[in-house]
Amino acid sequence: MRRKKLSTEELTNGIRKGDRLVLSRAITLVESQRPEDMEQAEVLLQTLLPATGRSFRLGITGVPGVGKSTFIEAFGTLLTEKGLKLAVLTIDPSSQRSKGSILGDKTRMEELARNPNAFIRPSASGSTLGGVSGKTREVMLLCEAAGFDFIIVETVGVGQSETLVHGMVDFFLLLMLAGAGDELQGIKKGIMEMADAVVINKADGDNLKPAKRAKVEYQNALHLFPANLSGWIPQVKTCSALEKSGLEEVYEMLDKFKRKVKSNGYFDKNRADQQVSWFKENLTDLLRTSFFKKPEVKQRYEEKLKEVQSGKTPALNAAREVISII
Amino acid sequence: MRRKKLSTEELTNGIRKGDRLVLSRAITLVESQRPEDMEQAEVLLQTLLPATGRSFRLGITGVPGVGKSTFIEAFGTLLTEKGLKLAVLTIDPSSQRSKGSILGDKTRMEELARNPNAFIRPSASGSTLGGVSGKTREVMLLCEAAGFDFIIVETVGVGQSETLVHGMVDFFLLLMLAGAGDELQGIKKGIMEMADAVVINKADGDNLKPAKRAKVEYQNALHLFPANLSGWIPQVKTCSALEKSGLEEVYEMLDKFKRKVKSNGYFDKNRADQQVSWFKENLTDLLRTSFFKKPEVKQRYEEKLKEVQSGKTPALNAAREVISII
Repeated sequence: MRRKKLSTEELTNGIRKGDRLVLSRAITLVESQRPEDMEQAEVLLQTLLPATGRSFRLGITGVPGVGKSTFIEAFGTLLTEKGLKLAVLTIDPSSQRSKGSILGDKTRMEELARNPNAFIRPSASGSTLGGVSGKTREVMLLCEAAGFDFIIVETVGVGQSETLVHGMVDFFLLLMLAGAGDELQGIKKGIMEMADAVVINKADGDNLKPAKRAKVEYQNALHLFPANLSGWIPQVKTCSALEKSGLEEVYEMLDKFKRKVKSNGYFDKNRADQQVSWFKENLTDLLRTSFFKKPEVKQRYEEKLKEVQSGKTPALNAAREVISII
Repeated sequence: MRRKKLSTEELTNGIRKGDRLVLSRAITLVESQRPEDMEQAEVLLQTLLPATGRSFRLGITGVPGVGKSTFIEAFGTLLTEKGLKLAVLTIDPSSQRSKGSILGDKTRMEELARNPNAFIRPSASGSTLGGVSGKTREVMLLCEAAGFDFIIVETVGVGQSETLVHGMVDFFLLLMLAGAGDELQGIKKGIMEMADAVVINKADGDNLKPAKRAKVEYQNALHLFPANLSGWIPQVKTCSALEKSGLEEVYEMLDKFKRKVKSNGYFDKNRADQQVSWFKENLTDLLRTSFFKKPEVKQRYEEKLKEVQSGKTPALNAAREVISII
């Protein structure tokens, strides 16, 4: 049943032609932990690099229940109607631990999944010991090389993945509901301040009035935040993904943002900074991984962790005692 | 001219007696990078550990010009009048690079510096390659063992040090000025959301009215933030450090916070979590330091960094190529 392995050339050519089956297999390759796959993935990424970077990268976060799937389905359909080719990558922090999934259920985004100009792919965050070994960025590059010109990276907004996503996109959108504060209970501190826009979803029916009120409140609040380096002032919008209202306004906002940051140089600067950060994060992560591979390190680490937790050993001492193994 | 080295026993006894001269020398020892000093510091910290942890740890941040020194001088004097022994540790991100200093000038906090119940000590953040090799936490432990029951950790709020400080204190206070938004230009994103309180300083004279207005605005804004794990709702206060008004209210707020988090268990839980994080951060930092000690690593790193910056090599590839040295 095992499929024949595709050569790097076959993968490269297939992706360049926009072959989705080949793209899918390339993603699997990039996500693989097998040494020979990792080597091939490196060559593939290096080869495709000149063909990457041309999409607009949008990060979307929000707690479960806020209507992310419905929003992406409706907004994504709008994008494809405008002639854009859309890739949706969902980062699912639960998938690695429980093998269950918040985002991965099959019934989500059915319409978009059948759309010939859309490509949906879940992507495990795969964090180990605080590391960031997920491959969402590399998957993004593959999608760009395959000709997708709009990438949505979706995350649930309750864990570490938002900071990660914020660091890989051009625009970070926080999806919320009206009902001041309540829907934020699950969201992590700091996310609000990272948002380039807050979009209040489910602004329909009885919810329309509270949504409009919430819009004013958030607009006032965002005013008090530190300025963005991009020169962009975070916006607040309302929409109803269900009734497909307000989506055109979201699109126009993104377009306005893009024009602004492309003309003031922030777009390119941010992309370059993100690449450098990603390089450094990967380096730290790989260093930790190779260190923790040694069984005696792992054992000493667990011992010292317990001593720190119980207040028996100062944190700095404990760290030095683990490091002293090498 | 070199002073005789104190033995660990002399240091331990001196600190336990609250001898400031010995405390100062112990701090110098803990901050030293010399291997034999580091070894002695470890033993000292281990010995003193049971005598630590009994202070209230307050982090204060704010951009230059907001009046941090004046605030700490006035508030610190109030604390000592209440019979508390206060240690003020200032983290100065500029000191390591330029040898110049935002916080270290001698004219600051003159009154407090002469106060027999106060102890002021600047502390370089000493970050290398994004690491966190500063020793402020360890200095804090020494001060606690010396009998200081209130610790203020001050930082300028423009760099990476705030997250660091937030991770080592019980309460994080953001000092601001009235004048909606302007004073935030220099502050980093995410700091606002970490604050347990926003205190608007210089609420005096013509500034009183704008300060009161700003208080209402920030109160409304903080309402929209995600809830704190502590169950504490961030407060907004106004004060004038110059006129010494509003300081008692700040003290009462801290007292209220302390009673709340001690009774709901958050205080201890947070302290334990902070220790574990500190252990992990130190571990990563030491790992990076020992890796970058190799000259060939450093060289390869610089090469790859340039390739990533110029878009010639994918970040993941570059990181793997640096790591491949070991």
